Amino acid sequence: MLGQMQNQPLLTSMLLDFAARHHGDGEIVSRRVEGDIHRYTYADLARRSKQLANALEASGTQQGDRIASIAWNGYRHMELYFGVAGSGRVMHTLNPRLHPTQLVWIVNHAEDKVVCFDATFLPLVQAVHAKCPTVKTWVLLCDADKLPADSGIPGLLSYEAWIAGQSDQYAWPQLDENTAAGLCYTSGTTGDPKGALYSHRSTVLHAYGGALPDALNLSARDSMMPVVPMFHVNAWGLPYGAALTGCKVVFPGPAMDGKSIYELMESEQVTMAAGVPTIWQMLLGHLGANKLRFSTLTRTVIGGSACPPAMIDTFREQYGVDVLHAWGMTETSPLGTVCTLKNKQLHLPAAEQLHIRTKQGRAIFGVDMKIVGDNGEDQPWDGKTYGDLLVRGPWIMDHYFKMEGSPLVKDAQGRGWFPTGDVATIDADGFMQITDRSKDVIKSGGEWISSIDIENVAMAHPAVAMAACVGMPHPKWDERPIIAVVKKPDAQVTRDELIAFYEGKIAKWQIPDDVVFVEAIPLGATGKMQKSKLREQLKDYKLPGL
Amino acid sequence: MLGQMQNQPLLTSMLLDFAARHHGDGEIVSRRVEGDIHRYTYADLARRSKQLANALEASGTQQGDRIASIAWNGYRHMELYFGVAGSGRVMHTLNPRLHPTQLVWIVNHAEDKVVCFDATFLPLVQAVHAKCPTVKTWVLLCDADKLPADSGIPGLLSYEAWIAGQSDQYAWPQLDENTAAGLCYTSGTTGDPKGALYSHRSTVLHAYGGALPDALNLSARDSMMPVVPMFHVNAWGLPYGAALTGCKVVFPGPAMDGKSIYELMESEQVTMAAGVPTIWQMLLGHLGANKLRFSTLTRTVIGGSACPPAMIDTFREQYGVDVLHAWGMTETSPLGTVCTLKNKQLHLPAAEQLHIRTKQGRAIFGVDMKIVGDNGEDQPWDGKTYGDLLVRGPWIMDHYFKMEGSPLVKDAQGRGWFPTGDVATIDADGFMQITDRSKDVIKSGGEWISSIDIENVAMAHPAVAMAACVGMPHPKWDERPIIAVVKKPDAQVTRDELIAFYEGKIAKWQIPDDVVFVEAIPLGATGKMQKSKLREQLKDYKLPGL
Repeated sequence: MLGQMQNQPLLTSMLLDFAARHHGDGEIVSRRVEGDIHRYTYADLARRSKQLANALEASGTQQGDRIASIAWNGYRHMELYFGVAGSGRVMHTLNPRLHPTQLVWIVNHAEDKVVCFDATFLPLVQAVHAKCPTVKTWVLLCDADKLPADSGIPGLLSYEAWIAGQSDQYAWPQLDENTAAGLCYTSGTTGDPKGALYSHRSTVLHAYGGALPDALNLSARDSMMPVVPMFHVNAWGLPYGAALTGCKVVFPGPAMDGKSIYELMESEQVTMAAGVPTIWQMLLGHLGANKLRFSTLTRTVIGGSACPPAMIDTFREQYGVDVLHAWGMTETSPLGTVCTLKNKQLHLPAAEQLHIRTKQGRAIFGVDMKIVGDNGEDQPWDGKTYGDLLVRGPWIMDHYFKMEGSPLVKDAQGRGWFPTGDVATIDADGFMQITDRSKDVIKSGGEWISSIDIENVAMAHPAVAMAACVGMPHPKWDERPIIAVVKKPDAQVTRDELIAFYEGKIAKWQIPDDVVFVEAIPLGATGKMQKSKLREQLKDYKLPGL
Repeated sequence: MLGQMQNQPLLTSMLLDFAARHHGDGEIVSRRVEGDIHRYTYADLARRSKQLANALEASGTQQGDRIASIAWNGYRHMELYFGVAGSGRVMHTLNPRLHPTQLVWIVNHAEDKVVCFDATFLPLVQAVHAKCPTVKTWVLLCDADKLPADSGIPGLLSYEAWIAGQSDQYAWPQLDENTAAGLCYTSGTTGDPKGALYSHRSTVLHAYGGALPDALNLSARDSMMPVVPMFHVNAWGLPYGAALTGCKVVFPGPAMDGKSIYELMESEQVTMAAGVPTIWQMLLGHLGANKLRFSTLTRTVIGGSACPPAMIDTFREQYGVDVLHAWGMTETSPLGTVCTLKNKQLHLPAAEQLHIRTKQGRAIFGVDMKIVGDNGEDQPWDGKTYGDLLVRGPWIMDHYFKMEGSPLVKDAQGRGWFPTGDVATIDADGFMQITDRSKDVIKSGGEWISSIDIENVAMAHPAVAMAACVGMPHPKWDERPIIAVVKKPDAQVTRDELIAFYEGKIAKWQIPDDVVFVEAIPLGATGKMQKSKLREQLKDYKLPGL
């Protein structure tokens, strides 16, 4: 017997309509590529998203077509999110930090029909446009009078001219809620990039889950700054979460340095910000150097890679800012877990609370997770036993765009679980902690050593700016860990001092065999350390004594 | 083109599984009919819900069968919620405050197969069981040794004996998410009761929406007390919200007096409670009389009928407890709006904030609303213009159980809106305020007078315990308002004093023509004032001067 409730599909246009109707004067503030600050409201966003939808129709694109962006966080990018998906097209966010060859590969694989890009990326588009035959329309996200006369890109349009003539009346189609809404490719550190194709349903459910008090806790009382780029898993879904709550949104645009972020946070009274650890490192550096304080910020969401405990501690103890440690992937929309305490943990001593906060946290309702051993057998939730992390849920990927077969692993009940490629522990309270990427774990004498644990100790040393641990071949132990370290400017520390710093902090056999001081750790397009490149750079390195 | 995310139906069993896996030791505390306090965990809840599902199979019930309860708020009732719906059956909560004739009518209309009831209601069941031919199994929610030998109800089972022999292993079926999960009848003040048939999808989406920070703000840090009965629109969805967050749950059982509620709140460190104004009146009475304070309570959700501003003020100013004013109906699952402030309102003076808090609040994402005039035309959102309130969304009813046709009103785009029967204003910020029930509005000289406004003024008078405003026939003005008043014990106030109390508080022409002192205002099964009965009692009343 079926229930008798209204049959209303979950669509991203429902988010936009809601924000425009119930939070019409809610502010959206953007630092533009031009450097100035732009302000408008959810009502304006809705009006212009409809103009964009009409422009997409007028340009001859069809439902299902992929429309791409190469853009910073800003209001025009948000219009693309809602106008493209709302009209039944697929919003494809391209990562400008990828190598141009990879970008071309992705545009061709996705068969993008339109590419909209910020002026910053004009040289990039000039270099690649001729290799993207599926793209019929190139749109520069600028005013009509800012369009260069001699771009060399045939038919290049200015975004403002493109949408200006269009009506702001448009009836969002009542799509099947499983219709594709967004496309995002993994950065592809191994093999070709792979696309995760989000649906309207998965996007709306993810927005509900992400806004919960135990997740990002989004409300109409927030002024939210998504520092995490909108080309990086939809800025963790924050533009959708913003529309769901009607909160104020503050987009930092291309200015990601500590000073710019800080000043915008203060002037727009930001209460909540989200980004990767490297961004917060720069922000904390700026605050420390200039003896500044946050006057409205209450919490930051940190994800993308494990947050060093020292950073969590600094935010809380020095600046009174709560750190929400989160975990997710392109394939998980991305929110999987967020670290918020439970009722029974609120009265624990601060040190025990910090210990919990260093974990990636608990599953959001909608996501289930488990850790399994080499033969797929469930591992105990004791906070100690490692296992491969698998997840499932309505915003977790089933299979990759245009790829045969599904990577899911079936359980005894026939339910598919997505293998994350992460190694993790889960404690009795359901708090998950990533111990490593499967491929980065160091296997020494039959035991596993977490490269992240080794890095966290080094990061807590005052002279260390960045640290990366890799395993080096060893005839007796198979592998032994060494640590590559970037020193802070003007800071001094020796190899022996750093090795000594490990004593008492981790087991003796886990202490790295050596320290290699380097100028920089290679970073990937999404700001993560690229250990494969680091290993390549260290290919002639020999462990001491060998 | 379809997205490629996991195809996972939204089922209530997903809520239970989540709570058991991720909050296994989360506490559920119940005051039992027996008077003692019972404690167990979400893991226990899941285990026993599975035993119940097996008992339902063993009793020969089928998927789609309605399984009814007549019960207080407690752990066994929560097991029914999850075991019945999770196994594909329909949880039908019966309201024991209904007249037995009406109860029998509902059981027969629903064709209930099993009825589970608390010992409190044994006399009621003894009186009606013979008139309920569809019911094959009567189950008393008690231990085996508490079952009366001579109940007169053929085959009466004790719940504990019924489930005791059953396995706690049970694979929840992967149902279509539109499968019916719950059934709840309106109290039927006019005509026969009508059933709202909730689906798994609507129940899970409602749980997401209700837990949001802008709605009830539910998290694993809460200790939640649902005072609103589980037979009253599923206790506003709180048992599902509890499982979604893994918060501690504290069930008051049958002891709804101020002293019992207060003591349980204190001993179980309740942070959040939800109920109708009459309950809070009793609780505040107990606190005031005994000079008590709340030590952990931070907020109450008040709904079911409009909350007098004086009560909101008392909670906030005297006790430091935030009042969340909420609005909903059986047909809306029930949460439609909750009154939480927006970012821009946080710095308003306290008086302006209180003015906003007296409204029923903003739509939760998932719900849309509008007000319309006599011809269905949209009314402006100016906070002043009255209109009939209509709502739509995935947890709003489409049509009533077993009734032909849908009450929905179609708009120009063909979308159906549920007519609530309430008259409301909506202000520019989207805050809705119920001004009256359509049938209670007083029409005087072509103008509408809100009976609720008149009642709120009277309720603010220190001598008034309860007040009900009704319209009386008048040859010149069509109707004129009078107010029926119940005085507080030992308090004194005269007709003229009360009429004078209105001066300066509302427009002169809205001031009631008369005051009638009564012993009691008739209340319906859900604690709401029954103005139709009051009008009947006053049928011989004549306005002064007529």
